[in-house]
Amino acid sequence: MAGWRAIGVIGGMGPAATADFLARLVIAAGATRDSDHPRVFVDSNPQVPDRNAARLGQGPSPGPALATMARGLVAQGAEVLAMPCNAAHGWADDIRAAVPGLFVDMIAAAVAETLVLRPSRVGIIAVGATLDARLYHDRLAATGVEALDCDRAVVQPLVTRIKAGDTGGEVRAAMVAEAARLAGDGVEVIIAACTEVPLVLRAGDSPVPLVDATAALVRAVIAAARRPAA
Amino acid sequence: MAGWRAIGVIGGMGPAATADFLARLVIAAGATRDSDHPRVFVDSNPQVPDRNAARLGQGPSPGPALATMARGLVAQGAEVLAMPCNAAHGWADDIRAAVPGLFVDMIAAAVAETLVLRPSRVGIIAVGATLDARLYHDRLAATGVEALDCDRAVVQPLVTRIKAGDTGGEVRAAMVAEAARLAGDGVEVIIAACTEVPLVLRAGDSPVPLVDATAALVRAVIAAARRPAA
Repeated sequence: MAGWRAIGVIGGMGPAATADFLARLVIAAGATRDSDHPRVFVDSNPQVPDRNAARLGQGPSPGPALATMARGLVAQGAEVLAMPCNAAHGWADDIRAAVPGLFVDMIAAAVAETLVLRPSRVGIIAVGATLDARLYHDRLAATGVEALDCDRAVVQPLVTRIKAGDTGGEVRAAMVAEAARLAGDGVEVIIAACTEVPLVLRAGDSPVPLVDATAALVRAVIAAARRPAA
Repeated sequence: MAGWRAIGVIGGMGPAATADFLARLVIAAGATRDSDHPRVFVDSNPQVPDRNAARLGQGPSPGPALATMARGLVAQGAEVLAMPCNAAHGWADDIRAAVPGLFVDMIAAAVAETLVLRPSRVGIIAVGATLDARLYHDRLAATGVEALDCDRAVVQPLVTRIKAGDTGGEVRAAMVAEAARLAGDGVEVIIAACTEVPLVLRAGDSPVPLVDATAALVRAVIAAARRPAA
């Protein structure tokens, strides 16, 4: 397949974030003609059980649906899997159990890019399910880095509005203000740890270095999918 | 599946056009939360044999690969199929034969939107395979509308640059100039009949009404995928 392993995208959480991920993957491939691109299979499934409700014990686990999607993508031909949704990584073990050895972990990719910056305190802009599952906290704490939560009462309503298609000036300004507040609390790096966040918050808008988890996943997937030259 | 049939996208021709199509599909769904979106399966396959080479008799037919992709998407669960590539519609019959009754035709969708404008002469901005197969010409001629070709010596190199990721000012200006030239030749409507074209040519840039075949396909697919209320 011309230098690439086929990529499978466990998507739809939300659909706009998946489309954003695919567009970035195309650019990151750095190809100059169609045939130099990787093959990409996408399953954009907006019916995956709600991650926040599941984390609160108010709904079914998304794990079985994610495992089924992973198996379906592999059956199609995917050789490397990615899931552009931070919160859903709370159930990444269900994917790893279903299709061992193929999953590129978004949290690991974003933490690796964060640690390069050698911070001692990092702000996490994420939804409740990501914060409550300590997806970033535990990985950062293991290297002695403190993680500071965003104000979820601010961020969750913004993410809901972005999912409804509102990426306008008011939403952007509120997200920038939240980044500024975290910087005021002493964080040296902010992780955009929800795939809807980079749709309204770019690096230039943050007073401290911003690690975009979606961008980190794109880079990690491209690296994993590229076959070494013979 | 919450009011929607699952959509399958026969993509990768080119990959950026497929990502653009998916992003537009998400917006057009008009959903306000994840679970109100349709499920979308994408097979972005940049290894489909080259359409221009096949049309010129210099390469294998893309038909068998497109039929295999269509069957794979239907096996995944797709109930409505779309292919965001005009030129590949020269082999749409291979898809219809493989999975009867599911394919939403992009050329038919764009021609229907064109005829609403009641033109007598229409400009077609497309690559050679689309022009040579008379995909638009024959449908328009059947309703008494004359189709005027773009200058393929201008458009093909622009499409090649767009596929290589160049959507900069020079490419945009050259595409706008080609639209102006067609308008100067008396066309009353222009069809952006290559999925790379709307990546650099928007309606406001054309001196006459522009029918964007990608947008027409998005609307047709959304209409076909929406289940009537019970």
